[in-house]
Amino acid sequence: MHIYETTLRLGQTDSAGIAYYVSVFDMIHECYESFLDLAGILKEGKYLLPIVHAEADYRAMMELSDRITVEMGLADTGRSSYTLVYRLVNQRGEVTAEATTVHSVVDRKSGKSIEIPGEIRGRLEEIRGK
Amino acid sequence: MHIYETTLRLGQTDSAGIAYYVSVFDMIHECYESFLDLAGILKEGKYLLPIVHAEADYRAMMELSDRITVEMGLADTGRSSYTLVYRLVNQRGEVTAEATTVHSVVDRKSGKSIEIPGEIRGRLEEIRGK
Amino acid sequence: MHIYETTLRLGQTDSAGIAYYVSVFDMIHECYESFLDLAGILKEGKYLLPIVHAEADYRAMMELSDRITVEMGLADTGRSSYTLVYRLVNQRGEVTAEATTVHSVVDRKSGKSIEIPGEIRGRLEEIRGK
Amino acid sequence: MHIYETTLRLGQTDSAGIAYYVSVFDMIHECYESFLDLAGILKEGKYLLPIVHAEADYRAMMELSDRITVEMGLADTGRSSYTLVYRLVNQRGEVTAEATTVHSVVDRKSGKSIEIPGEIRGRLEEIRGK
Repeated sequence: MHIYETTLRLGQTDSAGIAYYVSVFDMIHECYESFLDLAGILKEGKYLLPIVHAEADYRAMMELSDRITVEMGLADTGRSSYTLVYRLVNQRGEVTAEATTVHSVVDRKSGKSIEIPGEIRGRLEEIRGK
Repeated sequence: MHIYETTLRLGQTDSAGIAYYVSVFDMIHECYESFLDLAGILKEGKYLLPIVHAEADYRAMMELSDRITVEMGLADTGRSSYTLVYRLVNQRGEVTAEATTVHSVVDRKSGKSIEIPGEIRGRLEEIRGK
Repeated sequence: MHIYETTLRLGQTDSAGIAYYVSVFDMIHECYESFLDLAGILKEGKYLLPIVHAEADYRAMMELSDRITVEMGLADTGRSSYTLVYRLVNQRGEVTAEATTVHSVVDRKSGKSIEIPGEIRGRLEEIRGK
Repeated sequence: MHIYETTLRLGQTDSAGIAYYVSVFDMIHECYESFLDLAGILKEGKYLLPIVHAEADYRAMMELSDRITVEMGLADTGRSSYTLVYRLVNQRGEVTAEATTVHSVVDRKSGKSIEIPGEIRGRLEEIRGK
């Protein structure tokens, strides 16, 4: 399990007074970025890791300045894709959202799906299970 | 079916050179806002319509300035929730993403789920099916 | 003067119930993008047009679903930079914000400032003055 | 001086491969939020602190995953407004941007400007000068 701590920012709230629903997808991606060196991959990698599916279930409202802990785990790997699951927990220990992203591995030049590179697979296995 | 036209903005792209995955959720919500008078509901409604589930499948890359048509339809209604489905199509007629949101209807004061108000149900039925 | 029409989106509001201050910078850039073919420049241009200064004055609150007209004009050009000014007006004719951006022209390879290309200068002159 | 550390996120970059210019305004506001209890003020305060002016000067490009330190200081206070200045520095010690925000203090009910409350003034004086 990989852990990322964040605070709900004003720019992530909306005029309903709570977190704009899209903010969950920003928060889980920040968690993912804090785990994997996306900058290195985008600059030098022979492959890309596009998200092919994303979903979120909203369990409880989040408010401005809530301290959110994002827990990320590896749920599944295939030949050329992997599935990450996330749980968002606030400062009172309440689960506010759960989410899933499915990532595909594609060759940068051909755009075709390729096997998960060993370096990525190894990194992912460190957080298998939740 | 409700139709919303938009253009992929620079702020919706990322340094991978294509649409940041979160942009799809912004675009479908803009479509939803162009359909339902959220401002009126947030100001005067006795109820709120929080999103309880959202998901997207990514079919093709979107690039800066792509003309995106969002088609929205009603997939299902329950006693106190409804499900909307979306299809994003670019200027070349390619489906770039499909998405779903599930909305719950809750009493503003009690926070408890209530029956879909008639005015909302009527509006939704206009776009049933795709 | 170049005109761009937009609607204040839920994602642009915050829990103070009005437009998040950053939204003005998104709106003026959308206006700019609707004027200049940034996609073409980013893909094929030998130059880039980075913003080197941006500012906004906030005159009146903007609320969810407000219809905002952004008026953009050319205020000034130098050898290798130009200044655009913007006025945001809501559906009641009130000026809600005024803004300015200064853009520099740099060679894509060397990163050094270069003379404004003729095609850009011509396009800009069409909206000189407000 | 108040210090806030952040990392440039994928959602803050654009397809030019660097930070979208608007990201600077998000980053300085996150810094401000980490200093002042905006959540408390929005919930309970008899006053609001709207931004009436904001500006940024861009000194150097920021890239995905750059570690950005935001330094915030109080530049000036008036009867009912205050001016904050910011400097963004990357992991190589380069100043990437400088920014300013001017905040007004208004009574929540009347919307009229009022004197800076003592609690806010005291907090601000702690970071006077840079």
